[in-house]
Amino acid sequence: MPRKLRLISVTLCCLAFASAAAQPADDIAQPTGYRKWLHVNTMIVDKASPLFEQLGGMHNVYVNSVGEAALKKGGPYPNRTIFLTDLHEYTVTDGSYVEGPRKALAVMVKDSKKYAATGGWGFQLWAGGDPKKPLVNDPTKQCFECHQPKKDQDYVYSTYLP
Amino acid sequence: MPRKLRLISVTLCCLAFASAAAQPADDIAQPTGYRKWLHVNTMIVDKASPLFEQLGGMHNVYVNSVGEAALKKGGPYPNRTIFLTDLHEYTVTDGSYVEGPRKALAVMVKDSKKYAATGGWGFQLWAGGDPKKPLVNDPTKQCFECHQPKKDQDYVYSTYLP
Repeated sequence: MPRKLRLISVTLCCLAFASAAAQPADDIAQPTGYRKWLHVNTMIVDKASPLFEQLGGMHNVYVNSVGEAALKKGGPYPNRTIFLTDLHEYTVTDGSYVEGPRKALAVMVKDSKKYAATGGWGFQLWAGGDPKKPLVNDPTKQCFECHQPKKDQDYVYSTYLP
Repeated sequence: MPRKLRLISVTLCCLAFASAAAQPADDIAQPTGYRKWLHVNTMIVDKASPLFEQLGGMHNVYVNSVGEAALKKGGPYPNRTIFLTDLHEYTVTDGSYVEGPRKALAVMVKDSKKYAATGGWGFQLWAGGDPKKPLVNDPTKQCFECHQPKKDQDYVYSTYLP
């Protein structure tokens, strides 16, 4: 089946079961141009963090123009909002944390119907930022469960810093 | 004297002495819209750094569109390039370094003639990002001396990370 048809088929299939099963999000395309989206914030998950093994690194977070106004209000976010985390290695030299090469790219894409089973967000993560290396095949367990505590911010951890 | 005329006057005066005296750069306007310029990198100068007292914080560095291509080549930079550092406080919680409020905004503005005495760059720094609180009155001592070792990168510390 041609890829486009297959994706539509997957989408229709999953929408029918949206309340029961999470959309695997293997149809999420890797965004380009995000280095010039609004830079939301940066966070470093360092070695002392209990999250280091899963999330260690420098997280540079961006939002596309669709989500900017909602970010400033603290959500909820309109469909087609994309948050992207450009996760990098870092080195520590003389007390300075310096950005290194990319470890991964991660996105949250809002589509309240398509991703109804995961709070209206589709999730994907690419190893090394390589579009051929998607890592998310169970978005509920791999992504959404950690975002659930932020339901009052539409499942987004980031808040706006002027 | 109206502000605009006064600035022109200052500029002309200083150009005449460009080889002898650094331009004080009190005419550098604070840029807007930089959160959507190319995000060059982020660095944290932490408490263990010898630079902490002067430069402690999370440095989010951006470059305007004029300087993008030169950044990717490692310089030199064309006139009207602007590098901006949006310096923020940070907190450390459970091993994660989280961005806090703004401490300062700093810029380097390229004008090879006007700022010939400081490598072709004008420097300014605003406390808290407040346009009414410029802190640089001696750009040679306060800024340029620390940038001189990077002469081979046109005095810019940042390099391009894909």
